[in-house]
Amino acid sequence: MEPLHGPATYEHEPPRHWALKINSKEPFNAEPPACELVDSYITSVDMFYKRNHGPIPVLENYSLFRLKVGGLAPNHCSLSMDEIKQLPKHTVVATLQCAGNRRTAMSLSRKVKGVGWDISALGNGVWSGARLSDVLNMVGIPNYTKVSSCGGKHVEFVSVDKCKEENGGPYKGSIPLLQATSPDADVILAYEMNGEELNRDHGYPLRVVVPGVIGARSVKWLKSIDIIAEECQGFFMQKDYKMFPPSVTWDNINWGSRRPLMDFPIQCAICRPEDGAYLEEGSKVTVQGYALSGGGRGIERIDVSVDGGKTWIEAKLGQGLKSGHGYIPDDDDHRDKWAWVLWELSVQISSPTDILAKAVDSAANVQPESVESIWNLRGVLNNSWHK
Amino acid sequence: MEPLHGPATYEHEPPRHWALKINSKEPFNAEPPACELVDSYITSVDMFYKRNHGPIPVLENYSLFRLKVGGLAPNHCSLSMDEIKQLPKHTVVATLQCAGNRRTAMSLSRKVKGVGWDISALGNGVWSGARLSDVLNMVGIPNYTKVSSCGGKHVEFVSVDKCKEENGGPYKGSIPLLQATSPDADVILAYEMNGEELNRDHGYPLRVVVPGVIGARSVKWLKSIDIIAEECQGFFMQKDYKMFPPSVTWDNINWGSRRPLMDFPIQCAICRPEDGAYLEEGSKVTVQGYALSGGGRGIERIDVSVDGGKTWIEAKLGQGLKSGHGYIPDDDDHRDKWAWVLWELSVQISSPTDILAKAVDSAANVQPESVESIWNLRGVLNNSWHK
Ligand SMILES: [Mo]
Ligand SMILES: [Mo]
Repeated sequence: MEPLHGPATYEHEPPRHWALKINSKEPFNAEPPACELVDSYITSVDMFYKRNHGPIPVLENYSLFRLKVGGLAPNHCSLSMDEIKQLPKHTVVATLQCAGNRRTAMSLSRKVKGVGWDISALGNGVWSGARLSDVLNMVGIPNYTKVSSCGGKHVEFVSVDKCKEENGGPYKGSIPLLQATSPDADVILAYEMNGEELNRDHGYPLRVVVPGVIGARSVKWLKSIDIIAEECQGFFMQKDYKMFPPSVTWDNINWGSRRPLMDFPIQCAICRPEDGAYLEEGSKVTVQGYALSGGGRGIERIDVSVDGGKTWIEAKLGQGLKSGHGYIPDDDDHRDKWAWVLWELSVQISSPTDILAKAVDSAANVQPESVESIWNLRGVLNNSWHK
Repeated sequence: MEPLHGPATYEHEPPRHWALKINSKEPFNAEPPACELVDSYITSVDMFYKRNHGPIPVLENYSLFRLKVGGLAPNHCSLSMDEIKQLPKHTVVATLQCAGNRRTAMSLSRKVKGVGWDISALGNGVWSGARLSDVLNMVGIPNYTKVSSCGGKHVEFVSVDKCKEENGGPYKGSIPLLQATSPDADVILAYEMNGEELNRDHGYPLRVVVPGVIGARSVKWLKSIDIIAEECQGFFMQKDYKMFPPSVTWDNINWGSRRPLMDFPIQCAICRPEDGAYLEEGSKVTVQGYALSGGGRGIERIDVSVDGGKTWIEAKLGQGLKSGHGYIPDDDDHRDKWAWVLWELSVQISSPTDILAKAVDSAANVQPESVESIWNLRGVLNNSWHK
């Protein structure tokens, strides 16, 4: 038996926190109550959303496990966990967000296919491990390489889980070689989350963390890394996680016509007060939420309305140097470049109404007002104004 | 007299094409008719928008001119044009767009301050020159440097023109040192435009071209480059080209609370048929336009509607590998990473209506439907749906 393997059944699942809202039991997909998110800039391991496509892999033998690195690289190698831990340890604060976050709201407009996520399919973690670029150096690929000397242009990450979508094969994904070999892109092979050893739900013993792109590319239970000539041909790159216009249906879809999603758009949501909370007229409430954008773009501001969008008040941005309001121009180490921003605003409720929130990122991108204009059959990247 | 200097008067302006629409005569600000833009993937020098803040500088003596490179760098140097031309010549296709493009339409909603640009304050050029990173290497700053050994974090570009906004001083701007020293960011010191020597309107003898950010950072008539500790404190970085919410007025503005604009949002416009063209019912028209996004993000698709937004048809993307529809995953050299995409669509007009267009970029960012939601007192970055 392989030292790390994906079981065929759900008998070996790890324990999970009782407070998680389970969207699918097998494979296990669950998110925390939204209010948990805004209670802490760093999301606890317990409350971090769980996104799986099969049973959780089992590491039978830590010392026999080896990560294989090969493909279109001058050299090949295989690394034990101890060898990976001997490489310089790099820590990144990065928010991972499932492309399906807020899918449930999109489905209300018109039914979409996929796990029904509310607004908490994301979390902000502290990830520590080896830089992917350092590992690629070991197989002869220098930093900042677009095309390897053997013609490789993408880096493929292969897991060991058994995914129905891959006909029982493992989950896979790839990123461009230039991103993989750029130390400032902060792609890491993480063995720690929030200062603790990675747990099974989050990829033990080793996962990739690709900051600034949809969570789907941060492959868990990493078994091998392959330098490849073209982007990965796996299901989750080619037949899923792509963006289609509202007019495309399951009858006329042409998967080959679109790019795999990587970068994602400006997003924000209200986590407190919770949906349906009774807000008395004249009462003062503290509204809290999160905001994030893809590609390392910062958050310029958050606008909140308690009168149905007639007037907007700017929220106060919390931890995170990315805040535009009272920004710090000399962000030395960009420690939070890849992280969300938590925000809050105390407002007087003058008449019963939905609270609205929308964000602007550092590229001045804004969220669309209605979900209809961005509706897509897979229900990905719903970033319409939140209420 | 300095070999390159900015005159105090407008007696030495270069000749310009008669077809340009002049928005301001002194300083000269003009844009081409929109239909000129879609006739050619590369915008001709004549038709390229002209954006100035003072009289056009005059180069009195080519061989005496020297670019000074200094500030917080281990070494300083000054380079003649011949020395700059001896460095490896690098060519980039990049679209420059004025942050004020489409300001006129924003002013219709509520009056804004600034030159009244229609939809043609942008152009796609072929820029050739030395890489900025190569020049910075010469003063002892290696590629991919975030902070120089002397504490520099930004690179300031200083011109020689006389700007009213700078009380007669030169136009200035800065970009982060990491961007300036990253060869893949393609920042160049250009002495050629479209294969010809740069002309006076576009910065002769030397200008910076910073792809992927607002045109305001591509400083013309470059005289010196300084490595500085904090971002440039010039007028156009600190008191202009920032993004404010609709609620901010000239009475309550706090310039210090916002970042200087760099990256810009997804944008598209219809160039043909022209505004106000008579479209007969039942006729077939070819709609043509441009689309672009900041930060090197690609164009995923363009949606066009001829029924007021009830239904949308996808346009055909023209030259530019950035097209998402029928995309080419192995874009070897990303030759068009920084360039716009031209698009077209033949449609039947069933009833007289405005034609609408909106684009989606590779990060799935969309354009806002109404200009009201993004209105700002300086009228920058109007990227609302175009009609
Ligand atoms: Mo996902
Ligand atoms: Mo501009």
